[in-house]
Amino acid sequence: MNKEITSTQNSYIKELVQLKEKSRLRKKTNTFLIEGVREISLAIKGDYQVKTLLIATTIVNNDEIGRLITKMNSTVEIIEISKEVYKKLALRDSTEGVIAICNSKDLSLNSIQFSTKNPLILIAEAPEKPGNIGALLRTADAAGVDAVFIANPKTDIYNPNIIRSSVGCVFTTKIATGTTSEIITYLKEHHINMYGAALTASAEYQTINYTKSSAIIVGTEATGLSHEWLQNTTQNIIIPMRGAIDSMNVSVSAAILIFEAVRQRNS
Amino acid sequence: MNKEITSTQNSYIKELVQLKEKSRLRKKTNTFLIEGVREISLAIKGDYQVKTLLIATTIVNNDEIGRLITKMNSTVEIIEISKEVYKKLALRDSTEGVIAICNSKDLSLNSIQFSTKNPLILIAEAPEKPGNIGALLRTADAAGVDAVFIANPKTDIYNPNIIRSSVGCVFTTKIATGTTSEIITYLKEHHINMYGAALTASAEYQTINYTKSSAIIVGTEATGLSHEWLQNTTQNIIIPMRGAIDSMNVSVSAAILIFEAVRQRNS
Repeated sequence: MNKEITSTQNSYIKELVQLKEKSRLRKKTNTFLIEGVREISLAIKGDYQVKTLLIATTIVNNDEIGRLITKMNSTVEIIEISKEVYKKLALRDSTEGVIAICNSKDLSLNSIQFSTKNPLILIAEAPEKPGNIGALLRTADAAGVDAVFIANPKTDIYNPNIIRSSVGCVFTTKIATGTTSEIITYLKEHHINMYGAALTASAEYQTINYTKSSAIIVGTEATGLSHEWLQNTTQNIIIPMRGAIDSMNVSVSAAILIFEAVRQRNS
Repeated sequence: MNKEITSTQNSYIKELVQLKEKSRLRKKTNTFLIEGVREISLAIKGDYQVKTLLIATTIVNNDEIGRLITKMNSTVEIIEISKEVYKKLALRDSTEGVIAICNSKDLSLNSIQFSTKNPLILIAEAPEKPGNIGALLRTADAAGVDAVFIANPKTDIYNPNIIRSSVGCVFTTKIATGTTSEIITYLKEHHINMYGAALTASAEYQTINYTKSSAIIVGTEATGLSHEWLQNTTQNIIIPMRGAIDSMNVSVSAAILIFEAVRQRNS
């Protein structure tokens, strides 16, 4: 029989609440929480190792959970939890009654292995809002980029709001993090062209050839890319703006740039 | 001397709170509120007529307000309000102390006048979230589309959250609303090609020629375009998805499609 926890005061549950809330604890333990059948399925697909599955038996759809469990390693621990315990751990209102505790992956640049000679990489410098990071990761997934690098990360990528807003795409794309310096060094060593999105660049984005190894780098909407990036790129690029305002949402501009690269690579 | 209102119980202020909150009242009176210097400036630029300007004198930057007032018609009524009254009317925390009461525009299809023979139009069917509508309007502004049509609107475009999330781009682009049927009829009568974004379309978006009169139509992320649209388009188009998930944020997919059209029109 499975273990069962019904008290929100249980010390293990309290620890999991901390894991949901504290990036520091996620880093220390190399574990994080995933909520939702789709998100957990994508994590398994992305070769993440689920350690424990918490199931609120009064909420879950048994068929769905059955299918989910068959995809997992047989060593996964299953714990039944009460609705109250689930609510304590869950982020969403529209809940599915299932939470996984999962091992983090190595996010170092050296862990990245490309399956192509001419990778296409999306790089975001210091993105802050989980919603923006989630949107970038959805774009990266849809475009099939070879990796996403986060330079000078402000937010732990296993933040529950990133998992949620990426609808699980945080698990389907290779991700690495590092300082801007480390990533620039990496790209130079690997002979990957760097195209930095800038509001004052001389080259319009659609005039660039992205079919060789290319990294497209976007900064924040508020401050753009750092000087360090702008001075080290192969070429800075601009999306010509024809309207009254001069800024774009970072996930929108990243999508325009990445899909132009994909278009060229497929034509 | 200007009129001054310091009480949040003032009947005129109570009416304005209703105007902020009730779409029905905005429609009935053909007026709405705009908050913020940038947004009000863009409305003036977009030929909106400001009737009244409410200024919280203890909050505003006098230079900024001075510049704003010089752009306005001399008939604009100026009312000084207290900080408390301002807080009652304002939506944002980071406030600038200025709110305009402005006349709505005619949003009928017949009001649209194109300045080009081959217009590019972005159409969204039944978008719901103000944030998505705002993002679409920012994209439309940046791309310089000739008009945005909202089919079967669920939300009044003068909703304060749309004004806010569009950062004022709701005022810089020609907008019309109508039922899906009315818009299809309009497009057919004006010989404008219709390209509907669909998850199962046979044509990849980048294979289409958008240099003639073109409308790009997007549906909601949850349900996509209605059958009525899908059956009446010139061609349905798809953004090829290479990842684990099969949907995109509507503002992201609209941006990819619209900027491909712009790219073709400029190359």
